[in-house]
Amino acid sequence: MNSFGRFFRVTTWGESHGPAIGVVIDGCPAGISIEKEYIQKELIMRRPGQTDLTSPRGELDEVDILSGIFEGRTTGTPISMVIRNMDVKSKDYSNLKDVYRPGHADFTYERKYGFRDYRGSGRSSGRETASRVAAGAIARRILEELGIVTLGYAVKIGEVDIAEEEINFLDDIPAQQAKELRREIYNVPARCPVPEKAKAMEQAIREASSQKDSLGGIIEIRSYGVKAGLGDPVFGKLDALLAYAIVSVGAVKGVEVGAGFKLAGMRGSQANDSFHTVKGEIQPSSNRAGGILGGISTGMPIVLRAVIKPTPSIEKEQLTVDRHGNRVKLSVTGRHDPCIVIRVIPVLESMVNLVLMDSLLAQKTVRF
Amino acid sequence: MNSFGRFFRVTTWGESHGPAIGVVIDGCPAGISIEKEYIQKELIMRRPGQTDLTSPRGELDEVDILSGIFEGRTTGTPISMVIRNMDVKSKDYSNLKDVYRPGHADFTYERKYGFRDYRGSGRSSGRETASRVAAGAIARRILEELGIVTLGYAVKIGEVDIAEEEINFLDDIPAQQAKELRREIYNVPARCPVPEKAKAMEQAIREASSQKDSLGGIIEIRSYGVKAGLGDPVFGKLDALLAYAIVSVGAVKGVEVGAGFKLAGMRGSQANDSFHTVKGEIQPSSNRAGGILGGISTGMPIVLRAVIKPTPSIEKEQLTVDRHGNRVKLSVTGRHDPCIVIRVIPVLESMVNLVLMDSLLAQKTVRF
Amino acid sequence: MNSFGRFFRVTTWGESHGPAIGVVIDGCPAGISIEKEYIQKELIMRRPGQTDLTSPRGELDEVDILSGIFEGRTTGTPISMVIRNMDVKSKDYSNLKDVYRPGHADFTYERKYGFRDYRGSGRSSGRETASRVAAGAIARRILEELGIVTLGYAVKIGEVDIAEEEINFLDDIPAQQAKELRREIYNVPARCPVPEKAKAMEQAIREASSQKDSLGGIIEIRSYGVKAGLGDPVFGKLDALLAYAIVSVGAVKGVEVGAGFKLAGMRGSQANDSFHTVKGEIQPSSNRAGGILGGISTGMPIVLRAVIKPTPSIEKEQLTVDRHGNRVKLSVTGRHDPCIVIRVIPVLESMVNLVLMDSLLAQKTVRF
Amino acid sequence: MNSFGRFFRVTTWGESHGPAIGVVIDGCPAGISIEKEYIQKELIMRRPGQTDLTSPRGELDEVDILSGIFEGRTTGTPISMVIRNMDVKSKDYSNLKDVYRPGHADFTYERKYGFRDYRGSGRSSGRETASRVAAGAIARRILEELGIVTLGYAVKIGEVDIAEEEINFLDDIPAQQAKELRREIYNVPARCPVPEKAKAMEQAIREASSQKDSLGGIIEIRSYGVKAGLGDPVFGKLDALLAYAIVSVGAVKGVEVGAGFKLAGMRGSQANDSFHTVKGEIQPSSNRAGGILGGISTGMPIVLRAVIKPTPSIEKEQLTVDRHGNRVKLSVTGRHDPCIVIRVIPVLESMVNLVLMDSLLAQKTVRF
Repeated sequence: MNSFGRFFRVTTWGESHGPAIGVVIDGCPAGISIEKEYIQKELIMRRPGQTDLTSPRGELDEVDILSGIFEGRTTGTPISMVIRNMDVKSKDYSNLKDVYRPGHADFTYERKYGFRDYRGSGRSSGRETASRVAAGAIARRILEELGIVTLGYAVKIGEVDIAEEEINFLDDIPAQQAKELRREIYNVPARCPVPEKAKAMEQAIREASSQKDSLGGIIEIRSYGVKAGLGDPVFGKLDALLAYAIVSVGAVKGVEVGAGFKLAGMRGSQANDSFHTVKGEIQPSSNRAGGILGGISTGMPIVLRAVIKPTPSIEKEQLTVDRHGNRVKLSVTGRHDPCIVIRVIPVLESMVNLVLMDSLLAQKTVRF
Repeated sequence: MNSFGRFFRVTTWGESHGPAIGVVIDGCPAGISIEKEYIQKELIMRRPGQTDLTSPRGELDEVDILSGIFEGRTTGTPISMVIRNMDVKSKDYSNLKDVYRPGHADFTYERKYGFRDYRGSGRSSGRETASRVAAGAIARRILEELGIVTLGYAVKIGEVDIAEEEINFLDDIPAQQAKELRREIYNVPARCPVPEKAKAMEQAIREASSQKDSLGGIIEIRSYGVKAGLGDPVFGKLDALLAYAIVSVGAVKGVEVGAGFKLAGMRGSQANDSFHTVKGEIQPSSNRAGGILGGISTGMPIVLRAVIKPTPSIEKEQLTVDRHGNRVKLSVTGRHDPCIVIRVIPVLESMVNLVLMDSLLAQKTVRF
Repeated sequence: MNSFGRFFRVTTWGESHGPAIGVVIDGCPAGISIEKEYIQKELIMRRPGQTDLTSPRGELDEVDILSGIFEGRTTGTPISMVIRNMDVKSKDYSNLKDVYRPGHADFTYERKYGFRDYRGSGRSSGRETASRVAAGAIARRILEELGIVTLGYAVKIGEVDIAEEEINFLDDIPAQQAKELRREIYNVPARCPVPEKAKAMEQAIREASSQKDSLGGIIEIRSYGVKAGLGDPVFGKLDALLAYAIVSVGAVKGVEVGAGFKLAGMRGSQANDSFHTVKGEIQPSSNRAGGILGGISTGMPIVLRAVIKPTPSIEKEQLTVDRHGNRVKLSVTGRHDPCIVIRVIPVLESMVNLVLMDSLLAQKTVRF
Repeated sequence: MNSFGRFFRVTTWGESHGPAIGVVIDGCPAGISIEKEYIQKELIMRRPGQTDLTSPRGELDEVDILSGIFEGRTTGTPISMVIRNMDVKSKDYSNLKDVYRPGHADFTYERKYGFRDYRGSGRSSGRETASRVAAGAIARRILEELGIVTLGYAVKIGEVDIAEEEINFLDDIPAQQAKELRREIYNVPARCPVPEKAKAMEQAIREASSQKDSLGGIIEIRSYGVKAGLGDPVFGKLDALLAYAIVSVGAVKGVEVGAGFKLAGMRGSQANDSFHTVKGEIQPSSNRAGGILGGISTGMPIVLRAVIKPTPSIEKEQLTVDRHGNRVKLSVTGRHDPCIVIRVIPVLESMVNLVLMDSLLAQKTVRF
């Protein structure tokens, strides 16, 4: 199952070390101006080798648009985008052919299919997410015109985390400002909006890396400019679709909306957001709900957090077995990110944008 | 969007205070023995009024099977089940017609549709989940024959929570034992597997209730007997579908798999589960992954947790506004659960069973 | 697979001799006025026992609306409708339990599922189509407000058929007039718009019936008021969806659009419809395309025809076998239509309306 | 809507004169041997320029497999195939930019989207069907292993048609023989199994072509080796899906199954196929049903026919209008097929194979 979305339908394909990866978008409205450069810029934010904190795999991730755009505008037909795999070193992986790497999908894919494409994790590689970012860029482009901006950043890396108060300046800002902030945050290697914490995070990553180990973390995503009324009841709930979208990204092991897990210890009187009137418009007076009530947007910023597990590929020696059950001592060398949190941020943003785009198109109207 | 699942497709319908609610299951394999009593027993576990800890709404939740079962066996055609709403007191709600209750979907539904069915929250009511439990019962019945048992329980209610060590006896038990344990746990009013904690939770609920307030909590769900190889890559990941399924339940505001949010502070060397051989079979030697790697089951129990927000309906006075923006002091009386955690447990179990059932049917084979 | 449509999603359920049949519509826009009487009136047009030309099974087909409509308007939540089976004589069928009736699905269902619900053909009975008419009525109601009217009638029954010239008065009439015509045509027992032919058709049915045999025929359906631009390229082609919808009705064995099979013998210069300008508006100057080009509506009436096979249940003795392979002489008594064409007309109209409704909702817009 | 199928899901993309066209298959089972040559051979059967009866557009239609196949076997992940557009003469079309060609989708696309990709019909071009043939080849490959062979041929071109008796040697042959026959028939320019008729068809095409006109025709498709029990009730009926699949091909304006439109004039006693026993196996004794009863296969060959309209692009002068409503005399020069029937045959076969493949995967089993 390699498609996502009901109306803005995204199908990704491709393996880490095959000739290319790519994506087809079906359902993009016609007449929207999209420049290749816009998509390329988003891809660069995810691509490896941006700073010394990320994998040195030398992928330029140049995107080729093969259909669906004519004279600079979408035509309403499927948009097909292809990204060639350039820096493929399959030989790096031949020694892993028979080994089950801890924390990887080697074992489960083999149990499912009977065999697997062992080159760089094949389809289960994080490389697949470049396709999502390409599709997400198109969604972002359209959402921006509607005044919606999605912004992600690290709130925890290893043991360094941000206190809620440190980022309450993000609570309710105009979408346009969020767009500028995004640019700033992406310029910081750790992609954390609190400068001192950003430094500490960088430090923590370098330390773990030097110890041949890796770190995990937590990403927060906010969408500004989403008006009240988006999302569908029951199985079309905005938060349910967001949870699905976000957990579908390989390294994610949990997601929460608004106050999230903290709500477990609160009372109803503490958890409920009251309604009040601001300049004649009714809105919640706080946002513990994270911008979603009954699965439908409240008009407050959508806020969610996702936990990213530490990169499973580490140089530190681990014990495991091969497919014959023989014990193996494993040290995963190669080109890996000591902390994938940084590069997952644009992927999660993309998934959020895809959900918003899809939910916007799901809005039922009868017109003719 | 009121359908869930691709192959075992469940469509729920109905409002809290309409004549009935119900569900249609499309895709249930033919030839499976299902007795109405089995479904009824599951419904009873969710129904209000079981103990003094739950809402006194007097619903028997008797299910009527209108199609798809002939001479005690499924026929392969859609199974339609209807549950009449018996104890409907719509008048209780007429005073709420114009008020936006904090923590409820009143405001968002109205923003979406322009108006709303104000009787008992209409479609956004937790009552809709009875349909899910009816469908989940059929999935459970089939899964049991395949040796799969799903078990849910409270691990936190209000400020009372369980330490990991207190429930490590649940780490890897045979499915049959889980089935018996489930019966025991459901007999405890707080549905917590640690007796002292169960008592304390009960106590906490009563206390909050007496203070006209409500509590939230955390539910843990485990599925035993799921062999390695279930789930699909990319957008069919077992954990992504589970996250979607679980967050689609109204009160849920977060979900995590295995070690979940704790993974943020771990290093790769701590987070990875190694593989070893037990009686000639390869399996992970720990289960921080919660039974899922790369979206596919590892053969270890599937473990997840969901946070349930405190019931938004509280008698305690709250400030809010009505649809005209007038400030209103609101005290929600009526028949509400002081802590919905207890009754959500069978709902989450049902959602997990629906995902497992669907993923089992998604397994591709070409046969003839 | 018991659902139809992507956006206006209709799920039917129920067996001929179970307690009830029904339908759930998911995706109906909110705020539309629907009266139960409107749906009931459409159901009456399909129900048996209307004239002596149809089956005497005494079903009133009274519909019960269980959800989705509040204070006379659709709420945007699923509309669940149930029709009880009242005149069930399952005993009529116990002698058929082991026999494979020619022209029926007895044999194929048993090969598929290993067993079957033998009471009145179970799920494969034409009774299922009452659910489609109930759903189609809601689509018709909405389409009428948009100025679209679908009209069906018999153009051939047995050996009596209409010449093209006899109905060219239907070529391009206002939708409102089509609505009135429909009322008139439905008042004629054979539902044929050419009075003399209608009489001859009646006669032919009575004759076949008296000879314990049955007749087939051809139904033509026209949709008036569909503007240019409806439908989607490639797999969302209006004609492809219509073909699917129409052939999904049990007795249909073929479908054609516009000039249909006659196009095989034409040359391009004869088949092409030219474009011209009428009162400043561009439109085709003829309609051999049946209102659809490249899968998208041209603004001309949509025209299609479907062939209906003769009712397979005949009293005339037939040779067949039972499930053990024993030869059996079979005379199907019971309450059957000597010519199902008449009652299939509103079913096909419903399917066309469901396709139009779905395609209208499929139109992509980005708004907020 | 550019995807087809529920389980063997095919998404096509690309425009006639863009850089490439292509297809992604999601849901192909793992472990199946596919050689690129096999797909290439099928593509060649559809490609232009094979004989002087087809368009001289010089496309080699070389396929590039970018994912989903590893070491010669399918991996269970999406198969992405790309075909470059080589012989693109967009300039040929610049004069058509503002003209609405009769019989083409120019007008309807523009009404739908507000503008269109005018180069060679863009997305509505028959070129899109090359993607379907590439996907169909993979389905064919798998079906062959299951003993299923689909065979198509012309039964009518212009005014030359085949009598039923002339092809009753095709009524029930072993699948293997059908495979060989296919090779032979494809070697005949008109792809007609009756040699004298084939010659006459060729002659007719040449004559129409020399008169700057075009011809239509009827294609018959048979699938051999489909066992009883394939297909799903109600909206998963094999014939409904086949009708959808076949009418989704641009030039098709009608489809019929088995005796098709002839059934309109038959009586039940003539139309019904009796059941009898052959070598201990129950089967129909005739095949007016075309191998499908109640939407489910009977075990007899599946037989259907589709009408193909004459190529709308003709050199003969036609009157039409441009987008401003000005009258235009149009003579469509360029590289067009005087009779597209020949090249549509492998496309329809592909669509049938996709439906069979999808229905095979739709068969529900619970296994683990």
